[in-house]
Amino acid sequence: MTTIKDVAQLAGVSVATVSRVINDRGYVHADTRKKVEDAVKALNFSPNEVARSLYKRKSKLIGLLLPDITNPYFPQLARGVEDRMQEQEQDYRLIFGNSDEDERKEQDYIQTFIQNNVVGVISSTNYPHSSIYEKLKIPVVFLDRTSLDRPSVYADGREGGRLAAREIIKRGSRRITVMQGPSQIRPAQDRFEGAIEIIRDAGLDYRVIQTTSFSINEASVWAKELFRKYADTDGVIASNDIAAMAVLHEASRIGRKVPDDVQVIGFDDIPMSSLLSPALSTIRQPAYEMGREAAGLLIQLVEQAAIENKNIQLPVSFIERGTTRKVRSDG
Amino acid sequence: MTTIKDVAQLAGVSVATVSRVINDRGYVHADTRKKVEDAVKALNFSPNEVARSLYKRKSKLIGLLLPDITNPYFPQLARGVEDRMQEQEQDYRLIFGNSDEDERKEQDYIQTFIQNNVVGVISSTNYPHSSIYEKLKIPVVFLDRTSLDRPSVYADGREGGRLAAREIIKRGSRRITVMQGPSQIRPAQDRFEGAIEIIRDAGLDYRVIQTTSFSINEASVWAKELFRKYADTDGVIASNDIAAMAVLHEASRIGRKVPDDVQVIGFDDIPMSSLLSPALSTIRQPAYEMGREAAGLLIQLVEQAAIENKNIQLPVSFIERGTTRKVRSDG
Repeated sequence: MTTIKDVAQLAGVSVATVSRVINDRGYVHADTRKKVEDAVKALNFSPNEVARSLYKRKSKLIGLLLPDITNPYFPQLARGVEDRMQEQEQDYRLIFGNSDEDERKEQDYIQTFIQNNVVGVISSTNYPHSSIYEKLKIPVVFLDRTSLDRPSVYADGREGGRLAAREIIKRGSRRITVMQGPSQIRPAQDRFEGAIEIIRDAGLDYRVIQTTSFSINEASVWAKELFRKYADTDGVIASNDIAAMAVLHEASRIGRKVPDDVQVIGFDDIPMSSLLSPALSTIRQPAYEMGREAAGLLIQLVEQAAIENKNIQLPVSFIERGTTRKVRSDG
Repeated sequence: MTTIKDVAQLAGVSVATVSRVINDRGYVHADTRKKVEDAVKALNFSPNEVARSLYKRKSKLIGLLLPDITNPYFPQLARGVEDRMQEQEQDYRLIFGNSDEDERKEQDYIQTFIQNNVVGVISSTNYPHSSIYEKLKIPVVFLDRTSLDRPSVYADGREGGRLAAREIIKRGSRRITVMQGPSQIRPAQDRFEGAIEIIRDAGLDYRVIQTTSFSINEASVWAKELFRKYADTDGVIASNDIAAMAVLHEASRIGRKVPDDVQVIGFDDIPMSSLLSPALSTIRQPAYEMGREAAGLLIQLVEQAAIENKNIQLPVSFIERGTTRKVRSDG
């Protein structure tokens, strides 16, 4: 097979110069460029071979497993992972899969990741104790999920729940409904428990709407159920921003005024939240940063650098917009 | 290296039975299962090797290049591709990248796809005539993009633009503003031209807001500019649903009533559009189906089946919701 060295030799230039010409990067004198191009033609050096010879050693694959990329929270994580993987000439590439929170599908993906020689895996798993991870001989980082015995990057969900409850109480809600996310998703339970903790501490009752997925289609069903079961609710802590959107939509449909009659707080701060009318007050998870941190941690593990902190918890924050009332000075 | 055949031989069963046990799929008698598990242990047959031996021949990689997965239109395409790739025991896996509409980044990705032995590429490129595609020796399908000389799957953007204009005119808008999408994105221009064609045919004037990206952050800027420049506009044909969301947000902020004072029609029908208040009337592109069709076409090309139709155009449709008025019977 013709290599980039053969091209360089025939053209009488360095390998670096050939690379610059082929990739059209950096300055190359027109005469030199011509020589290289002639050599490429003479040797029938194809792009396929170009890629192989240029990238053979430094290219690496990472497996990325997310629950569902059509949930607008996850593309942020994915972008964070991807952008970090390409910095500092790392040039890792991602094999990507959606698990649909299904353990079998997750296992299948992990197996094909391995078959395709990935050097590491980032997984937003609901099955951290699955045997597939135990048996895995390459580094794994859990993203958006916590595990005591595995490197992981996640947001402080419990504190997020507390924050939502504190802010909605401070702004005057007294008959609060908490939407409880799917029971098998740990971060959803953390934020639910955090919210309940604060509402109880304040001596208030609370209502619960149990949801079983983060599906956009089903969100409307739960929003309808919420106002039907708890018509007098004056504050909703939604399980995520999509659920909050559905609550806003239903409130508008039945004539409940937001935030005057009922306040709504979401979770995630997906990019569309600021464009709603009114714009959504929400608990922000730094999804893009979480993706970046997970990628950075995995790179360290793959390259066997000393790891200082294998569990990275990122802070959440309250983003005040139009679905909550202004704090009263006596509040 | 221990292979699945060694395990089968030691256990005295077929390779298929070992595969069923290892993957926990289909019925295997408890005694047989025990024999296989003992053989796996005795030979120290690891999951890594399991995967390699089971998937070595049938696993295949496909490169998928999209502009930006954080734009909620693209995850739908990606899911369609992925789901179709895994049907019928195809078991193709995706190496995924975001090009950010950047030609250089796109070329880099295509090169690393090749280096990683992908058997085909699906690309939502803005550079269909780039030399990288010319030189490529594996099948390529353009997705959400048209090309006369390449297999492609796309929606009828021009008809989408016409449809938006017809519907907004039929419902009474006379001072229509058309948001023109980024000039380098062909489908954005198609829908713009389709809209203009119908507005002109109706003998109406139109106003144009030129946008330079589909970025969520910038959408608000253009929405503000729109109402500042064309305060009297009574109908907006937005460049996509995100832009429409920004227009709704700005209209609400400055007290313009939708749809009474101003009607708004989006483009794409992203999943969140139905949850807005009012819910967004929009031109639907069947993104998930487009992804599926592109995957099906690429599989055919990879497997060198006879291809009947290399350019698949899917229809668009008007989704009537709350940001347009009801058609008057005399309209």
